[in-house]
Amino acid sequence: MTTVEPLQWRGDAASGALWLLDQAALPHEERWVECRDALEVAARIKDMTVRGAPAIGIAAAYGVVLASRARATRDEGLRALATSRPTAVNLFWALEALGPLVADGPEACLARATQLHRDDVAQNRKMGAIGANRLADGMNVLTHCNAGALATGGYGTALGVIYAAVEQGKRLHVWVDETRPRLQGARLTAWELTRAGIPCTLICDNMAASLMRAGRIDACVTGADRITATGDTANKIGTYGVAVSARHHGLPFYVAAPRSTFDLGLRSGDDIPIEERAQAEVTDDRQGRLAAPGIVAFNPSFDVTPAALITALFTERGEISPVTAERIGQVLS
Amino acid sequence: MTTVEPLQWRGDAASGALWLLDQAALPHEERWVECRDALEVAARIKDMTVRGAPAIGIAAAYGVVLASRARATRDEGLRALATSRPTAVNLFWALEALGPLVADGPEACLARATQLHRDDVAQNRKMGAIGANRLADGMNVLTHCNAGALATGGYGTALGVIYAAVEQGKRLHVWVDETRPRLQGARLTAWELTRAGIPCTLICDNMAASLMRAGRIDACVTGADRITATGDTANKIGTYGVAVSARHHGLPFYVAAPRSTFDLGLRSGDDIPIEERAQAEVTDDRQGRLAAPGIVAFNPSFDVTPAALITALFTERGEISPVTAERIGQVLS
Repeated sequence: MTTVEPLQWRGDAASGALWLLDQAALPHEERWVECRDALEVAARIKDMTVRGAPAIGIAAAYGVVLASRARATRDEGLRALATSRPTAVNLFWALEALGPLVADGPEACLARATQLHRDDVAQNRKMGAIGANRLADGMNVLTHCNAGALATGGYGTALGVIYAAVEQGKRLHVWVDETRPRLQGARLTAWELTRAGIPCTLICDNMAASLMRAGRIDACVTGADRITATGDTANKIGTYGVAVSARHHGLPFYVAAPRSTFDLGLRSGDDIPIEERAQAEVTDDRQGRLAAPGIVAFNPSFDVTPAALITALFTERGEISPVTAERIGQVLS
Repeated sequence: MTTVEPLQWRGDAASGALWLLDQAALPHEERWVECRDALEVAARIKDMTVRGAPAIGIAAAYGVVLASRARATRDEGLRALATSRPTAVNLFWALEALGPLVADGPEACLARATQLHRDDVAQNRKMGAIGANRLADGMNVLTHCNAGALATGGYGTALGVIYAAVEQGKRLHVWVDETRPRLQGARLTAWELTRAGIPCTLICDNMAASLMRAGRIDACVTGADRITATGDTANKIGTYGVAVSARHHGLPFYVAAPRSTFDLGLRSGDDIPIEERAQAEVTDDRQGRLAAPGIVAFNPSFDVTPAALITALFTERGEISPVTAERIGQVLS
């Protein structure tokens, strides 16, 4: 299966640039945006030109390459990357991996960033194959947000599991949660799956529970933005509601995420910082204000699903089930 | 509390007309639409110029007045009303109440329609006061869709409970589910509550579960489109997910609806016809297509919440709790 690559380094370390497939313009326009300094990369992470925890991490890694060759604005650039978005831990993991190389210059940084990028795709394929064992021919699978090729270095985490199952010859149908307020499901997951020729149907987030009750969903699989040592999982707002409904209906709820999404320094999901974004994402559509004048909106970008509601975590190192601190330690160590 | 009246008969039976506050234009424009024949009323029910189970029933009743004075198109008009929307039973209840009077002419019909309208408001106030007993000072209450003055003859069912509690001096804060895909929460409930000066916050439907987990919701209250003899309740799509989450978090889930919303001829919620509406409601915003090209959307307009998930039903005849066929029979008989 050939999947899209949402970000590319083009050129050499000294004069090249990071190019991002603009995910705010998808699916209607395939526009590539060039970033020539770290501040620009940070701004594009913040405005979600590039999004998805693993993709944010890789973009930040390439951002460090740009910072490393800009002596005057280096510290400012690194700071901007570190404060661009708070929830996805892959960002901090990438900055930590690249940080010690900044002094060595752009070439060393680019080598490492490219390696992280390549590793991410390989890990996705591995975890996809591991997760696909849980999906049977003919299943209806629900996914929330976009945890596909666009959210990663390529291939995908949750969608990687679906791609791998299809590559194994299983016929699946995917229910795509539109994923308010940014509609990553309607815009991005729908775009990826239709390109891949995988049967899928778009629904509003609030329709999933009644589909479960009607027996029309067999399993749920999502990605993750940060997973604690105990398995509590932050992911796109609405994920928790899917997990609660899956539990109520006795359906499996799976999360696919690479090692870089784990934050083993945290125990409880309550300690994960949850980003709040602009009210206008909720109150406005492309034409402007839609909600009644004067009403205030609350817009947390993520929620936390406790480990107890997760049937299994798929990682490139193996499946973690049951989701306990002990099993996480065993599989990831 | 003065609430808005979403529909008015203006003039006498022989030459008057039904005027509807256009709910598709709210909250940005307060436009009144005149209906001078039953076909027009049916079209405005279908396109949701008027919506909400009790309001649809009352609009249909006034529609019969118009049919009764149009000899040539009478049957066509009555048929159009009966097939305008399938789920809300109040529509059929109103047609049944008015049907025998058609032969008596417009004056008899208008007297009965006006009575139904007046009764609905009085019933809302009664059921509001009954339901308000369940709400305590300082509570955070979640509601889904719009079951307010706009959805009824005036005052409201679910919002009637909130209005009545506020009239009793209780200070409430309301979490308003935006209610995809038609956004009745963001457009209509937010408009009603801000006009009434009741503190409220708009959220995406997929945020409610995590607010429950955080202890920021104390109770849920919605309206209904049809309730069976056993208490299974059809209401706006997404209601079932709210009820499932409420149960998971040990929170009360209330439904407020008048006697006219009960369809005692049906036992199971599975027998309630569920309307499916155009895919474009899900795939498009006001500017046009938003979802990826080629993806199909599923758009059921309602779901069914089984009686077992409902803490209490509020009706003008009293509270029904636990929600069982026996208690429903006792209270409604």
